[in-house]
Amino acid sequence: MKMINGGVTAPKGFKASGVACGLKKNGRKDLALVVSDRKAAAAGVFTRNIIKGHSLQLTMEHLKSQNQTQGKGIRAVVINTGNANACLGSQGDANAIGMASITSKQLKCCEKEVLVGSTGVIGMPLDLEKVKNGIVEAVASISYDGGGDAAEAIMTTDTVPKSAAVEFELDNHGPCTVRIGGMAKGSGMICPNMATMISVITTDADITQELLNKALKPAVDASFNRITIDGDTSCDDMVVILANGAAGNSVINKENEDYRTFAEALKKLCIELAKKLAADGEGATKLIEVEVTGAASDEDAHKITKAIANSPLVKTAIFGCDANWGRIITAAGYSGADFNPERIKISINGILFCQKGTAVAFDEAEAKKMLSGKEIRISVGLSEGSGTDTMWTCDYSYDYVKINGSYRS
Amino acid sequence: MKMINGGVTAPKGFKASGVACGLKKNGRKDLALVVSDRKAAAAGVFTRNIIKGHSLQLTMEHLKSQNQTQGKGIRAVVINTGNANACLGSQGDANAIGMASITSKQLKCCEKEVLVGSTGVIGMPLDLEKVKNGIVEAVASISYDGGGDAAEAIMTTDTVPKSAAVEFELDNHGPCTVRIGGMAKGSGMICPNMATMISVITTDADITQELLNKALKPAVDASFNRITIDGDTSCDDMVVILANGAAGNSVINKENEDYRTFAEALKKLCIELAKKLAADGEGATKLIEVEVTGAASDEDAHKITKAIANSPLVKTAIFGCDANWGRIITAAGYSGADFNPERIKISINGILFCQKGTAVAFDEAEAKKMLSGKEIRISVGLSEGSGTDTMWTCDYSYDYVKINGSYRS
Repeated sequence: MKMINGGVTAPKGFKASGVACGLKKNGRKDLALVVSDRKAAAAGVFTRNIIKGHSLQLTMEHLKSQNQTQGKGIRAVVINTGNANACLGSQGDANAIGMASITSKQLKCCEKEVLVGSTGVIGMPLDLEKVKNGIVEAVASISYDGGGDAAEAIMTTDTVPKSAAVEFELDNHGPCTVRIGGMAKGSGMICPNMATMISVITTDADITQELLNKALKPAVDASFNRITIDGDTSCDDMVVILANGAAGNSVINKENEDYRTFAEALKKLCIELAKKLAADGEGATKLIEVEVTGAASDEDAHKITKAIANSPLVKTAIFGCDANWGRIITAAGYSGADFNPERIKISINGILFCQKGTAVAFDEAEAKKMLSGKEIRISVGLSEGSGTDTMWTCDYSYDYVKINGSYRS
Repeated sequence: MKMINGGVTAPKGFKASGVACGLKKNGRKDLALVVSDRKAAAAGVFTRNIIKGHSLQLTMEHLKSQNQTQGKGIRAVVINTGNANACLGSQGDANAIGMASITSKQLKCCEKEVLVGSTGVIGMPLDLEKVKNGIVEAVASISYDGGGDAAEAIMTTDTVPKSAAVEFELDNHGPCTVRIGGMAKGSGMICPNMATMISVITTDADITQELLNKALKPAVDASFNRITIDGDTSCDDMVVILANGAAGNSVINKENEDYRTFAEALKKLCIELAKKLAADGEGATKLIEVEVTGAASDEDAHKITKAIANSPLVKTAIFGCDANWGRIITAAGYSGADFNPERIKISINGILFCQKGTAVAFDEAEAKKMLSGKEIRISVGLSEGSGTDTMWTCDYSYDYVKINGSYRS
C-alpha cells in the first residue's frame, strides 16, 4: 500500500474537469465534475446538521434509489462552489434538480445517476443559468487527467487544492492493482461528528454497494470526523465515494482479506485528505495533532482531544509560539471526561510540561523554538485505562478573523 | 429597585482596597481585598472544571466549615491576579493557606474566615513573599470607598474594571433600604455552565446562609452562566457573596416576599455584571445578545443560544458587519436542539433575514449600517413550544488573537 500522486482521476475509468461559470466573483474555477465511464456503486456520509442544503438532500435521495439498480447506479458527481444552495425553499430544490438534469442530458444518462453538491454562501439565490452553462463546458472538457482541475474548482476559502491517492494490491483471485483517489475542500465550518466538508472519492475496485458503505463510515470517523477548524458544522457537508470496478478485481462481496485491505487503504486516504484540510484551515500557520492515551475509554479520550482541538485559547497560544500548557490542562478538565487530575501528563513535541498534574520546569527558549515549527503534536497521558484518540486541527491567526469577517463581501 | 453607582463597598459595613504587589509585570494593581466589618454569611458557586486551582479549593473548604459557625463566618476575600496558583502540587496548597493566614493575622480573625482567589497563568510558581507584602499593604489601606481599587486589582486582560450595585427596599418589618454590590473580572476563558470567572458580591442584607446559597444559584445561572467569550472554562472561576446584615433588616430566614425581592435584585446585579464581562470580552468591539423563543423547551432554547454565541463564524461575521445569517441558522441546526427547519425565523436588531427557513430579501446597505452598531441582538424564533433562553457574548476581532497569542509573554 503506497500513496501516489493524483486525485479523483488516479483510479481507472474516471474523468474529471473543473471550469469557471461565474459564481465566484474573482473568476476562479467554481464548477467541478467527476464522471465514471461506467455505472458505479456509491455511498455517502452526510452532515448531521438539521439544516440541510437542497443539493445535499437530492444526493441523499439519489443514493437511496441506487438500491433499485443492483447497487450500481451512479455515473457522475457535479459540484458548484460560491453558493450553498441552502435555505432557498422550493427554488433550492428546483436548482438541485436542474443541476442533475442538465448533467444527465449532457452525459446521456438518467438524472438519478448524478449526485449534486453545492458549497458557499447560504440563503443567496443561485444563478442556475450560469451553472447550466458551466456544466455544458465541464462535460465538454472532462479528461482522464482532469482530477487537479476538479480539486481546484471545489475550493472556497481553501488556499491550496487537496488531492490524494493510494495504490494497493488485492489478491483473493490473483494479484490485481487497485487505486483509490480523492479530493476534498473546506477550511472553515469544519467540525467533528459529521461528514465535515465536501469530499469526492473514486476507486476502480469492484465492491458491492453494501460493503462500500460499510467501509466508508469508519474511514470517515477516523479522519474527517477527527478534524476541527472552528467547531462549526455546515449544512452542505458530505463525503461520497464511487466504485466502478474498472480495476478488474474479483468483486469484494464479503468481509474477507481483500475487504480489510480495501477498508484500510480507504481510511489511509481519508486521513491524508483530512490532515490536508486541517493544515489549510482558514488562516492556519501550523498543523496541530492532539493525542490522548490512557483514558478510561475511547469516548473519554475523544472528549479531551475535541475540547483541546476546539479551544480558541490553545489555538491562539500555538499561533503565538507560547508554551501555555495551562490552557491544555484546562481544556482537558472541562471536557466532560472523567480522570484523576493528579495523574495527568502533558507534553508537546516531546518536551514535558506537566507530570502528575503539576508543572515541570522547562527551558523557555527551547520551548519557543520547538513551537515555531510547522507541525505541533500535543500529547496528553492519563492513567485511567487504555482509551485513546487522535484529532487534527490548526492554530488561530489574525487571518482567521480577516477571512471570516468579510466572507460574503 | 434601582441600579446605583458603586461596587463591593456600596453596601454598608464593607471596606476594600487594591494594591500592586509585583505579580503583574507592568506594575499594575494585582491584589484585591474585601473586608466585612462583622462576620458575614457567605455562599459560592465554583468552576465545574476537574482541574481546580489551589486557592479555589481552599475557599470551598472554608465555606463548608462555615456551617459550624451558625452560617456566619466569613470576614474577608483576598484575590491575587497575575498567577492562577494552579497545578503546583503541595506548594500550591501551601500558597493558598499562606494567603489566608497572613490576611487573618493582619485582620486579627481566624484563617477559616478568609476566602482566597487567584487568577492568571497556570503552572507558574507563585512568589508568596510578594503576595504577603501586598496583603499587609492592602489591609493597611482598606476603606469604605475602596471598591473601585479592588475592582481594578482583579483585572487580567480586562480593559475596564467592572462594578455594579443595586438598591432596594425590604419591608417585612417596616421599610429598610438594602444594597447589593459586586465586582467581576474575566474577559477570556469564560463559558457557560460554571461559575465563569471571579466575582465578589457583597450585601448588607441580613439573610441566612441557607437562603443566600439558594438565591445565588439561579442568579448565576441567568447571568454568568449565560455569557461566553471563547467557550473555554477556567480552573479558578468562582462567584462568592458575603451578607453582613449591616442594613438592619429583619433577617430573611424563609422564602417570603423579602426573599423574593432580594433574589430578584441579586439576579439583576449579576446580569449587569455579566453583560459588562461579555462587552469587554478579549478584543471585543460589540456586545451580542442572542435570544431564542418558541423552542420545544428551555433546554433546547439554551442549546441554540449556546451554539450561536460560541460560533467563531458568527462572531467574526458580526465583527466584520457582515449580515451572514446563514451562519446563525447553521449553528442552530447543529446545536442538538430538535426543531422544524422550515419554521425557523431569524432577525438581527429587528431586521428580518429568514422566515420559514427561507431567505428574505433585505437591503445590504441598511443591514451593514445596523451591524456597525455597538449592540447586536440576534433573535431566533421557532414554532415548537414556549422554551426561551438569552445569552450574551461579543464579536471576535484581530485583537482576540493578538491578546491570546502572547498572553504569558
